[in-house]
Amino acid sequence: MSRIAHLPRPHFDAARRGRGRISLIGAGPGAADLLTLRAVRCLGLADVVFYDRLVEPEVLTHVRSGATRICVGKEVGAHAWPQPRIDRAIVAAALEGRRVVRLKSGDPSIFGRAAEEIAAARAQGIEVEVIPGITAASAAAAELCRPLTERGRIDRVVLATATCRTDDAPPDLGGLVRPGAMLVFYMAMHRLGALSEALAAAGLGSDHPATICAEVSRPQARSLTTTVGRMAGDCAAAGITNPAVVMVAVAKAPGDGTPGLLGQGRGRTSTAAGSQHDPLPSGV
Amino acid sequence: MSRIAHLPRPHFDAARRGRGRISLIGAGPGAADLLTLRAVRCLGLADVVFYDRLVEPEVLTHVRSGATRICVGKEVGAHAWPQPRIDRAIVAAALEGRRVVRLKSGDPSIFGRAAEEIAAARAQGIEVEVIPGITAASAAAAELCRPLTERGRIDRVVLATATCRTDDAPPDLGGLVRPGAMLVFYMAMHRLGALSEALAAAGLGSDHPATICAEVSRPQARSLTTTVGRMAGDCAAAGITNPAVVMVAVAKAPGDGTPGLLGQGRGRTSTAAGSQHDPLPSGV
Repeated sequence: MSRIAHLPRPHFDAARRGRGRISLIGAGPGAADLLTLRAVRCLGLADVVFYDRLVEPEVLTHVRSGATRICVGKEVGAHAWPQPRIDRAIVAAALEGRRVVRLKSGDPSIFGRAAEEIAAARAQGIEVEVIPGITAASAAAAELCRPLTERGRIDRVVLATATCRTDDAPPDLGGLVRPGAMLVFYMAMHRLGALSEALAAAGLGSDHPATICAEVSRPQARSLTTTVGRMAGDCAAAGITNPAVVMVAVAKAPGDGTPGLLGQGRGRTSTAAGSQHDPLPSGV
Repeated sequence: MSRIAHLPRPHFDAARRGRGRISLIGAGPGAADLLTLRAVRCLGLADVVFYDRLVEPEVLTHVRSGATRICVGKEVGAHAWPQPRIDRAIVAAALEGRRVVRLKSGDPSIFGRAAEEIAAARAQGIEVEVIPGITAASAAAAELCRPLTERGRIDRVVLATATCRTDDAPPDLGGLVRPGAMLVFYMAMHRLGALSEALAAAGLGSDHPATICAEVSRPQARSLTTTVGRMAGDCAAAGITNPAVVMVAVAKAPGDGTPGLLGQGRGRTSTAAGSQHDPLPSGV
């Protein structure tokens, strides 16, 4: 049987006596003016805000002056809280009846570890909601002024992570690297060598264009136009580290004439040979 | 040679005498409070706003009273402007020295036809910028309170369109339907039968779960929990039409133990048999 349900309205300001609640908020990629109005309003109502290291200080100006602010780090390196400690802390604060905000960079639903925090809240019967944020791929495309999709050439966007254990096998990207795809890799800067190899194994030539966008939407935002083969060395030389996204377009060949995914021919299941045209700018 | 560049700052309020400019703004999926602060500010500065049929009236309250508002339709059906007419109109208004906003639902960079408008502007030397918006997949995940990624189970998100010519071959989704992927199909409601067939051909069983989220973030937002085999009939019975997204999770098997894309084993390049667990709720 199918089930139909009305999706919930935002409840972050719904007062329930003595009952705390948790709002997971996406702060977007950095710039404070890429917050949504809903996020701003929710920050102004919070009693306590747990925020990531990547959240810009200006974003916190929307938190009311009486609220508690707690930096949980949550990036590779020192002073980061392990995820289970964050889970416990936000739940404990909500159980005290407080309005808790968990403020994350980007969108909580995309590589934001939100599933664990939602599960922890629900296990204690705590109300939880998610307020979406601008994800880095959208913001990078906006800053480059080059869309992620392009009618007739790019009809799907793949948001992937390159995070894995150091000694694992290279990725199997064969299925992703097909004509018509824009690949965006998050948190990839420490794995660029492995990513290059994997993309090559999937059929992309070493001279296939790649664009790296670092610190998207922040004052120091910059992009690097390079190739799949050289991106690791070029990023190292330019001092580009996380946060950054790697964008690799595998466009359909010009004149392919297939206007959308469902129009993709049966025979074209191979990798991207002959479709090396990249819609990202050659020099931004 | 690689090239590095600083990404541009927003320029929508930079006055240049006698020179118009165009801002492509993402209004998000519907709810007016999912606009970003940057979008609100830009709307307040515009001289003329060209907006889509799917933009909610409340969003337009941010447009200053003296500005011209022009609905360009841009949905299937009557009274929609063809894309080339939109391109010409926004460019013509900018050439008159006006601050032009092209307001689109969702994110302009994701299935927003922004590439054509950017190209038209640049061909006339018009300054153009993109202000990102919350895309429907992010908003649907937030409303369902179920993230698009989940550590160890779903490590990539595919945003695809099911729009194509009616008589085209079914899609080749073999590469997309692999363990670890969350598939989100935009603008698919008139092609659900073909999408079902394509997903089946790619290896998903007809009883594989699918969730359809319609009119995400609007007052009438609702979700339908169904299966790949039944989704066309169930959506027809429930009267669900566009705008909606179809979400199909192809999780890794529990205990798979591969924490991310780069850890995906070489041997698992087949389709999703044995990985039918769906992280979306069985009843939202």
